[in-house]
Amino acid sequence: MSGLEVTKVVVTPIAFPDPPLLNAVGVHQPWALRAIVEVHTGDGLVGLGETYGDRRHLDLLRRAAAQIAGLDAFDLAGLRRRAAHAIGALDAGDQHGLTGASSQAKTLLRVFSPFEVACLDLQGQAIGRPVHDLLGGKVRDTVPFSAYLFYKWAAHPGAEPDEWGEALDPAGVVEQARMMITRYGFRSIKLKGGVFEPDTEIEAIRALRDAFPDHPLRLDPNCAWTVATSAGVAAKTDGLLEYLEDPTPSIAGMAELAARAPMPLATNMCVVEFAHLPEAFAAGAVGVVLADHHYWGGLRLSTQLATICQTWGVGVSMHSNSHLGISLAAMTHLGAATPQLSYAADTHTPWQSGADVVERPLSFVAGSVTVPDTPGLGVRLDRDALARMHEDYVRSGITERDDTAYMKSLDPTYETRPERW
Amino acid sequence: MSGLEVTKVVVTPIAFPDPPLLNAVGVHQPWALRAIVEVHTGDGLVGLGETYGDRRHLDLLRRAAAQIAGLDAFDLAGLRRRAAHAIGALDAGDQHGLTGASSQAKTLLRVFSPFEVACLDLQGQAIGRPVHDLLGGKVRDTVPFSAYLFYKWAAHPGAEPDEWGEALDPAGVVEQARMMITRYGFRSIKLKGGVFEPDTEIEAIRALRDAFPDHPLRLDPNCAWTVATSAGVAAKTDGLLEYLEDPTPSIAGMAELAARAPMPLATNMCVVEFAHLPEAFAAGAVGVVLADHHYWGGLRLSTQLATICQTWGVGVSMHSNSHLGISLAAMTHLGAATPQLSYAADTHTPWQSGADVVERPLSFVAGSVTVPDTPGLGVRLDRDALARMHEDYVRSGITERDDTAYMKSLDPTYETRPERW
Repeated sequence: MSGLEVTKVVVTPIAFPDPPLLNAVGVHQPWALRAIVEVHTGDGLVGLGETYGDRRHLDLLRRAAAQIAGLDAFDLAGLRRRAAHAIGALDAGDQHGLTGASSQAKTLLRVFSPFEVACLDLQGQAIGRPVHDLLGGKVRDTVPFSAYLFYKWAAHPGAEPDEWGEALDPAGVVEQARMMITRYGFRSIKLKGGVFEPDTEIEAIRALRDAFPDHPLRLDPNCAWTVATSAGVAAKTDGLLEYLEDPTPSIAGMAELAARAPMPLATNMCVVEFAHLPEAFAAGAVGVVLADHHYWGGLRLSTQLATICQTWGVGVSMHSNSHLGISLAAMTHLGAATPQLSYAADTHTPWQSGADVVERPLSFVAGSVTVPDTPGLGVRLDRDALARMHEDYVRSGITERDDTAYMKSLDPTYETRPERW
Repeated sequence: MSGLEVTKVVVTPIAFPDPPLLNAVGVHQPWALRAIVEVHTGDGLVGLGETYGDRRHLDLLRRAAAQIAGLDAFDLAGLRRRAAHAIGALDAGDQHGLTGASSQAKTLLRVFSPFEVACLDLQGQAIGRPVHDLLGGKVRDTVPFSAYLFYKWAAHPGAEPDEWGEALDPAGVVEQARMMITRYGFRSIKLKGGVFEPDTEIEAIRALRDAFPDHPLRLDPNCAWTVATSAGVAAKTDGLLEYLEDPTPSIAGMAELAARAPMPLATNMCVVEFAHLPEAFAAGAVGVVLADHHYWGGLRLSTQLATICQTWGVGVSMHSNSHLGISLAAMTHLGAATPQLSYAADTHTPWQSGADVVERPLSFVAGSVTVPDTPGLGVRLDRDALARMHEDYVRSGITERDDTAYMKSLDPTYETRPERW
């Protein structure tokens, strides 16, 4: 095995149905967007990556894709140089305001990521080894994920109710948790908050604690609270939460809160690139960083992030956006090769109702995914599904994730406010 | 390529002639010790590692080696678990006091390192890829090294003068630099100090600057100075040094000095394991960390160290002890795959007079080593040389590096003192 030359790169935007999941800035649109990256080699191998599908990101992916032919799939350093060259000095902005501020460095790492994953997939296939072997070897045979609960409507307006039904109060949240845990076996629970006023969400957490006394719980209001409100919630949920995720904006705000909160604070919003780590750690702002290879620069850099967190005594969990089976496989290999992963990872998989672009998606048993030992990522593209989902993308007319605009289209009085409470 | 099972591990202590190089704690003994690690697979591949040869370290290497048969050479996580299990809760101490304090964590990473390098060598050989491809790909085609100058005697007492001659004053140091640069083409110069009183060593630096106006210069007195003395030297060498290496002991001392020194402070003595990084960086103690895969836990963790340094705005250089061609190859692959390496790496290679355990050692052209693109590390064991050097090890009777004891055997009045000046 000498050369593993990239001959063709294909970037395909897709859309798949998404339930009306509520959060601090609105509600999920009827379609979630992703982009699927295929990196082909001359001998017929195809490496896969999955990333955001928003228009501006898609433009950058295509610019990078155009520079990658001829690259050796082992040359990740060359891949990064080419991606940097392709996108130039851009700051492509954040897609939807829920994964922290953007910067030029973050944009590069976000564009680089799916190609890096695809090249690691190719490397693994070429040498007959799972991707986790290319990340230092697996430290666990199964990667635990959490039940990711959302307040939600029974249906998008005008549509039939989805299988999950309504969850707008503690009873609805507990019922959703029961369905999800019955189906998937999750042993940790995360509730997306920031939707109702804090005491209402605390009631939901208490109801979850009563219904699931042994499941670690987390609450994530996406920075919807002031420091003072957050401190009040933290006091009231003392002993209930394994961590409180992004209660309030900014490193300074999180640091102020962290000094008073009894539980660790977690983040995927105030620490979202390497440049944030020194200030955040010096300030003691966060006890847990939610790694996400989609914007931390791929799988290798995510393992490095985990080493940094360990060195500074900070825990590691894993963030998710709406995603399909390529991302789930990548997250599973990363989780397998990350000794520092100390919490169950987030996943939106249950919300996708089995829709996928891979032929046999990895599945959850007792809340965990068994780490594949087959070559590469261990998933293959379902080209019929890809074609269908691309048609859906075109038909949907959606080119940006915009939870707020969608909410406003349904409720013209809706307004987002930073630190609403 | 599926299994790459380790069938046999051989650890061989060796000795090779070493000139009488002076430093802050004494003088190099006539023999330098190393241990050569061979990791064999069933299909006849041999992966190589090189590390310290001191008795206590050797004992731990052998204990680890006994646990490694049956391991998959891709399973570096499993290798680390086995090494940890083999050595237990030991702190094996430092060999010679010149690479910082020891700890249980550092001992594990030091024992793990040569096996990790050997497994990466095996992986590369098995898949037909250079080791740098397993570290993320090379960012440079040549890795620059520095001329590593020492005060020295013309000969060990009772022996014939070596080829380098005496260097005990500025003229001798400049002459040594000329010889070394003529032979190897180095474009940076490091002087090991801490031997004479500081003003004398500053004179040598000034003489080097006059003789080599374009070569970046470094001075490393191995913590022989107080903070006050160091500050005086720093002021007098302002504009002369690219960095001042380990002038004074401890993170606190370095931090106090760093606030006053005009040049970056570098270290391989006060920051020698991951646990030191938060305190050192918070204190602003160091501007450059000298990575050394032999005690930072191998090549992969060394790349992670470099990412950490970059994230905190700290430079990266590379430390060396007396070593042979396996270590040189490993350092070269690491340097190739470490974008953050911002200084020429140290090497003792010139002092070994061509002695080596590999058949065709990598060589220096214009002060740099061309990065091998052949599979694995790109060096093969010279079994005749290994056998000879092992015989020398046995015959030498030396089992510890002890520069101080050797010096005292020659000069009973010699005493080491921390912060001698």
